[in-house]
Amino acid sequence: MARKILRIKMDDLSYKYEEVPSKWAKWGGRGLTSNIVAEEVDPTCHPLGPNNKLVIAPGWVSGTPAAPSSGRTSFGGKSPLTGGIKESNSGGTSSQKIAKLGLAAIILEGMPKDSKWYVLVITKDGVKFEEANDLLGKGMYEVDEILWKKYPNKPAIIGIGMVGEKKLSNAGISVNDPENKPGRYAGRGGLGAVMGARGVKAIVVDDTGGPGVEIANMDLFKTGRKKLTDAITSHDLTKPGGGLNSYGTNVLMNIINEAGGLPTRNFSAGYFEGASKISGEMIAETVEKRGGGMTGHGCHTGCIIKCSNIYPDEDGNDLVSPVEYETAMSLGSNCGIDDLDYIAKMTYQCDDLGLDTIEAGNTIAVYMDSGALEFGDKEGALSLFDEIRQMTPLGRILGQGVKATAEAFGVFRVPTIKGQSMPAYEPRAIKGIGVTYATTPMGADHTAGYTIAPEIAGVGGKVDPLSDEGKSELSLTFQAATAFIDSTGYCLFIAFPILDIPEGWAGMAESVAGVTGQSITGDDVISIGKEILKVERDFNTRAGFTAADDRPPEFMRYEKLPPHNEVWTVSDKALDEVFAWVNS
Amino acid sequence: MARKILRIKMDDLSYKYEEVPSKWAKWGGRGLTSNIVAEEVDPTCHPLGPNNKLVIAPGWVSGTPAAPSSGRTSFGGKSPLTGGIKESNSGGTSSQKIAKLGLAAIILEGMPKDSKWYVLVITKDGVKFEEANDLLGKGMYEVDEILWKKYPNKPAIIGIGMVGEKKLSNAGISVNDPENKPGRYAGRGGLGAVMGARGVKAIVVDDTGGPGVEIANMDLFKTGRKKLTDAITSHDLTKPGGGLNSYGTNVLMNIINEAGGLPTRNFSAGYFEGASKISGEMIAETVEKRGGGMTGHGCHTGCIIKCSNIYPDEDGNDLVSPVEYETAMSLGSNCGIDDLDYIAKMTYQCDDLGLDTIEAGNTIAVYMDSGALEFGDKEGALSLFDEIRQMTPLGRILGQGVKATAEAFGVFRVPTIKGQSMPAYEPRAIKGIGVTYATTPMGADHTAGYTIAPEIAGVGGKVDPLSDEGKSELSLTFQAATAFIDSTGYCLFIAFPILDIPEGWAGMAESVAGVTGQSITGDDVISIGKEILKVERDFNTRAGFTAADDRPPEFMRYEKLPPHNEVWTVSDKALDEVFAWVNS
Repeated sequence: MARKILRIKMDDLSYKYEEVPSKWAKWGGRGLTSNIVAEEVDPTCHPLGPNNKLVIAPGWVSGTPAAPSSGRTSFGGKSPLTGGIKESNSGGTSSQKIAKLGLAAIILEGMPKDSKWYVLVITKDGVKFEEANDLLGKGMYEVDEILWKKYPNKPAIIGIGMVGEKKLSNAGISVNDPENKPGRYAGRGGLGAVMGARGVKAIVVDDTGGPGVEIANMDLFKTGRKKLTDAITSHDLTKPGGGLNSYGTNVLMNIINEAGGLPTRNFSAGYFEGASKISGEMIAETVEKRGGGMTGHGCHTGCIIKCSNIYPDEDGNDLVSPVEYETAMSLGSNCGIDDLDYIAKMTYQCDDLGLDTIEAGNTIAVYMDSGALEFGDKEGALSLFDEIRQMTPLGRILGQGVKATAEAFGVFRVPTIKGQSMPAYEPRAIKGIGVTYATTPMGADHTAGYTIAPEIAGVGGKVDPLSDEGKSELSLTFQAATAFIDSTGYCLFIAFPILDIPEGWAGMAESVAGVTGQSITGDDVISIGKEILKVERDFNTRAGFTAADDRPPEFMRYEKLPPHNEVWTVSDKALDEVFAWVNS
Repeated sequence: MARKILRIKMDDLSYKYEEVPSKWAKWGGRGLTSNIVAEEVDPTCHPLGPNNKLVIAPGWVSGTPAAPSSGRTSFGGKSPLTGGIKESNSGGTSSQKIAKLGLAAIILEGMPKDSKWYVLVITKDGVKFEEANDLLGKGMYEVDEILWKKYPNKPAIIGIGMVGEKKLSNAGISVNDPENKPGRYAGRGGLGAVMGARGVKAIVVDDTGGPGVEIANMDLFKTGRKKLTDAITSHDLTKPGGGLNSYGTNVLMNIINEAGGLPTRNFSAGYFEGASKISGEMIAETVEKRGGGMTGHGCHTGCIIKCSNIYPDEDGNDLVSPVEYETAMSLGSNCGIDDLDYIAKMTYQCDDLGLDTIEAGNTIAVYMDSGALEFGDKEGALSLFDEIRQMTPLGRILGQGVKATAEAFGVFRVPTIKGQSMPAYEPRAIKGIGVTYATTPMGADHTAGYTIAPEIAGVGGKVDPLSDEGKSELSLTFQAATAFIDSTGYCLFIAFPILDIPEGWAGMAESVAGVTGQSITGDDVISIGKEILKVERDFNTRAGFTAADDRPPEFMRYEKLPPHNEVWTVSDKALDEVFAWVNS
């Protein structure tokens, strides 16, 4: 049975199943969400108005048997944070269930005329629109719990917290994990506000009795799957007991700190004296010592990397899952906070309220930089989440993210690009990732083209992070490969093994070819990725983006970053070269 | 003695007088500020960072003997509200005094290293930097009073209120009037925040003993001046006892309301049932009845139009000067408030706190539209200024203007263009002014190309406001003429008589030619104006503006405006035609 598009219209609470038009038939995941958004959403529409849409798509291989670590769901729309196209993807339980219902994508459009709120319940039999007024104002922990009680087949829950209800631009979209905790997020770019603007508090996806995913060429799929699985399980970073499995993403804390690229105190330094106290190693030690929580946690069924963790409180009870490197940076070093317990508590607040943790922590950092709070004041930082929970005016400012907070408090050191704040790698100390931040259609985003692999981790080659040389081409290659991977449903962390192990790269492509029946080999990955990037860049051009938007913030051009005392040096010309091919 | 540029560097508290370079020698007022900003300010700099500048220039004829109504001061910089170039000009006492000191422009640059605040005292002997920490947190009424006590020659005071100190993007720049009240404002675009970011609370300009303005050809100047004066004093709108003199700008309230173009309740209607209660006629009646305040007030020495007023409180005491049409719209009809006393009280708050009244009122309207306050709640609206005065988080939101407030409260009906909110003419009901709002480099601004003259007032011809036809050309002509007039120092209201009386138009040009010695006739006005527009557009292009920024807000394309039930119909192509000549 061919995949279908499920179109849900909130203005009249109707839905229909549509054939996937031939122009979109080749796409999955990000490739599909971006193509739909680019074609169906007016780039000049207001992101919170009636003409924006939220598009949700599982990857090409999601929902197939034992495709390793393939549980990513892609969310797309026009971003209220950047004003451009946005693709944000998440782990958790949703991708496989949507795929197993035979859906290529869900398109959520319109606004309820009566300003009511709804829970959408999607099963093999269609969509039910249930009034959700009783869930309003509730955090995602409670929402997930209530909905699993009400719908007993352990469905996927895609939901928004209070921040999304209020349509604030740092609202993320939560996906529950296998334990029904809300910590998996399509966090970036405010897509939670786009969902909120449709009047949807949560989407319940129950795949019971669904048709499953059709596989065009099972032999090819199995061949590819095995090559990829072998690569993942043999690479030092992704194998069982390897770096990611043992210490999670936060294995990077000490490494990036030593490289002088750890954003610290609102991007005023690249080295944090308290880094080791908030590192992945310290999380593992804490789990060990407190006898609770866990490392090596998987965010979805079938993950074989298992980089997630559950952080325990002082009594050994589960507090929150996961504490990531990005979170430990934004809520930790970037706020001058060296206490994992507080970082975990604030992460819990983010996950419950529906905030992207990167943006949320960086927002507190910029608030501290204004002088309103001391760097390192962990009690003060934690209490800010009460402001957001109560939706005080301060909470509304903070709930919008870094740029809005800087504007409200007169701060001109604003580490954002296209309105989105920077992740955990300082562009002045690691130039290639800065090129990605600046030029990706997504706003400052490490996952859009993770040049950290060769610049720091020595994966896929080894290049000098401080050098400008070759960074445009490096970034483009990573951006294109990423756009492909984001379309597969595979977790981006397969990039580490497949960059180093050619059979893994080929296997990824073959598994996609096996599922879809398309003729795709490893040689096609970059060109297919570039097709996606082109569509996204074109949307942004139509939305009014220019080269001036592909620039790091001004202060990085004149303010030296300790310890290397580097400024941003990559030329505008080099930045413009990254996407010169789009218009040529 | 040739005019000089006074360059003041706040980073080391130094200043110097510079020859006016030949490239700028021809310019005055807006032509000069825009050229300096375009050349000296990086269009990609942060508006509140160290690399933005505030440029202040009197017009060509300001400070000459008896040039009628020629007291406009031009302020320029990169706007924190629009992100583009900004020219905002004001009446009041400053223009003539700066000109009489022999200054073509003042360039204020850099930031004090010690974060201290200063008052700059400019006399014929140079600049004194006086510490201003005792003035911080004080409103402009008190600041003006203190500074006139300290500097007894009745100097011009250019200052910022608390909103500018906090660098919020709706901070205007106050200029005192002849009675030393702070109600004359270069209000729009947040230039008060640019001044605040330089660490300058106020600039005192004492022209005692200054060299005065050199006049190259006194005969020609006198000829032109007489023609212009005759035109002003004979036209129905500008003559003594004419429309503006009797009722002020608010003579428009009933007229625009009848035309269905009066912004009402956050731009949801074009007709306000309470319009007559907040009209210019009602102001005149109130002045008469209460035996206090005045109509026919002049905002600077030598004004012969005298459209300003002083609004009296219930006991007949002066409350605030002036209550303008724009203010009565933004704080009145657009908030659903039909009480002039409250509009006057809120205007006082704006003038004291340092807010642009148009943006401030429209901000309250958008706040009301979010449901946070009822339309028409005048007590509630007035109390919001306490929030701003106390700089509560809500005050910080409101102090930034419409766009920021809409984002904080999840409103998608946002009547802004290039981030600046719309003045008192509904573009759906009066299409030509919408073309000006959309395409002027300044953000939505009626004064940038006041097509209301022919569309409503029957001045300079008569065209149908509801028709799209010919509006691109009409807007461009008005934008170009305005750019010229904004360079002269003459008040824009001379446009009414000179559009109808050809000798007046010629006289304006001849008076400029007489002062500057340039060969300028009435035939050159449009082409000189276009030179200025081109420089401004080019700045915005380099800042990243595109055609997508030259558009009215999306909701006006699909939401019908009563009573005409019109949507915005002017095509994007027609909008793009306005400035097509810039790139051709």
